[in-house]
Amino acid sequence: MSASRRIHVFKVGGALIEDPARLESFLDAFCAVSGRKVLVHGGGRSATDLCAKLGIPTTMVQGRRVTDADTLRVVTMVYAGAVNKQIVSGLGKRGTKAIGVCGADLGIIKSHRRPPVVVEGLEVDFGYVGDIDSVDVEALRFLIDLDAVPVVCPLTYDGSGLLNTNADSVASVIATALSNSGEDTSLVFCFEKKGVLMDPGDENSLIAHLTPERAQKLISEGVIAGGMVPKVTGALSALSKGVSSVYITSSEDFFGGTEFSLGQ
Amino acid sequence: MSASRRIHVFKVGGALIEDPARLESFLDAFCAVSGRKVLVHGGGRSATDLCAKLGIPTTMVQGRRVTDADTLRVVTMVYAGAVNKQIVSGLGKRGTKAIGVCGADLGIIKSHRRPPVVVEGLEVDFGYVGDIDSVDVEALRFLIDLDAVPVVCPLTYDGSGLLNTNADSVASVIATALSNSGEDTSLVFCFEKKGVLMDPGDENSLIAHLTPERAQKLISEGVIAGGMVPKVTGALSALSKGVSSVYITSSEDFFGGTEFSLGQ
Repeated sequence: MSASRRIHVFKVGGALIEDPARLESFLDAFCAVSGRKVLVHGGGRSATDLCAKLGIPTTMVQGRRVTDADTLRVVTMVYAGAVNKQIVSGLGKRGTKAIGVCGADLGIIKSHRRPPVVVEGLEVDFGYVGDIDSVDVEALRFLIDLDAVPVVCPLTYDGSGLLNTNADSVASVIATALSNSGEDTSLVFCFEKKGVLMDPGDENSLIAHLTPERAQKLISEGVIAGGMVPKVTGALSALSKGVSSVYITSSEDFFGGTEFSLGQ
Repeated sequence: MSASRRIHVFKVGGALIEDPARLESFLDAFCAVSGRKVLVHGGGRSATDLCAKLGIPTTMVQGRRVTDADTLRVVTMVYAGAVNKQIVSGLGKRGTKAIGVCGADLGIIKSHRRPPVVVEGLEVDFGYVGDIDSVDVEALRFLIDLDAVPVVCPLTYDGSGLLNTNADSVASVIATALSNSGEDTSLVFCFEKKGVLMDPGDENSLIAHLTPERAQKLISEGVIAGGMVPKVTGALSALSKGVSSVYITSSEDFFGGTEFSLGQ
């Protein structure tokens, strides 16, 4: 399969999409990448803001949102409504055809409700939170072959209703499913920093290249810590499952951040 | 073209979609209709409720919502997020594949911002409100031919951002565009009453059949009044532009309400 047929799966989240100027800059860079693309987005901060305005308490456990029925309604409005359509409109403005979807559209991402888990000795029920079972690659490819960018919000579908799902996981599972269907696929986690940094406060300390062995060493030394740990382990997991290349990077230079490889 | 190829364009709004039990009953009836279908929905009451909770004043002029930037964000969340995905999920639960879209998705419904209008001597700027220019029938048919129901929310696209648009108009323009492209098309406005009634308080006073002449007479006599006037004139307008059959009806019996015809 030629490189031009490669499908790039981008994930964008956090500060990049919730600051209008940064979102514009990201969309410019995204549209400049040629070829087939999928864009997965987050939107958690906006959801937290809207919950606060509506008097709905936000509870996070291990970085994941506990999602009761009221919170599910808020995240559906924010992710599938406000954020998704802002991105679709912004792509259209740049001449890039796009179609926004959640997991229920065409039944594209099936999941099941996460069972209660024990965290620090206490049972936690995350509520309407989904763990992904499958991606309908044919439906996704159908949209891609319309020359459209599927813009995917982090809500999956259990066959009856929506479930709130981590956007990094959605991107990783989509890239893996496309790869397993025979597509040459890359996965680009795009955020507000240049990539994985040796010193989070120093943008010049980029780690340009990470193997599983080096990543494990840096995690055990505490150099890679906090929210970067699941990003890095997710990146390595996608690579080990067949995704051709994986990057954690900024919107300044998508393929110039941290690149992962399975080599030594 | 055989009757089984007919495309039914349904519009559902108001009390039907904002009462969970009635929505379930509507979705059952909708899924029982065979063949190719498009579903356009409203959601104005939920938008008004969310505006109220967020302290955003709602201003209606001649039944249309004045839409400032804050209100546009709310209607985007409610129409494209909460209502659209509830319907898509509800159809999926019944084994009916669906894909939710607004006018920006695939650039499917293009519009322009309505210029200020003079109402009772005062100039009114409706803000982010769109009047429809065109429907991309090919894109719509592409989704329909995926054996999916396009679920269309009443937000259109001016090439840059979203515009709030009357859902009855969206349904009427979609049916007309499909019809003009050579499709045998019906248009079904589905609401909480049996159809157009001689006496709005008496469900047994259904007018089973309306021609332009009779409709004009009943409007001039004040029998058809208030919010029914634009529904009836919209129905007749779609019929005169080539839509094969038009109904105003309830979800109890889609094709048993008021049927319009151009005859005497």
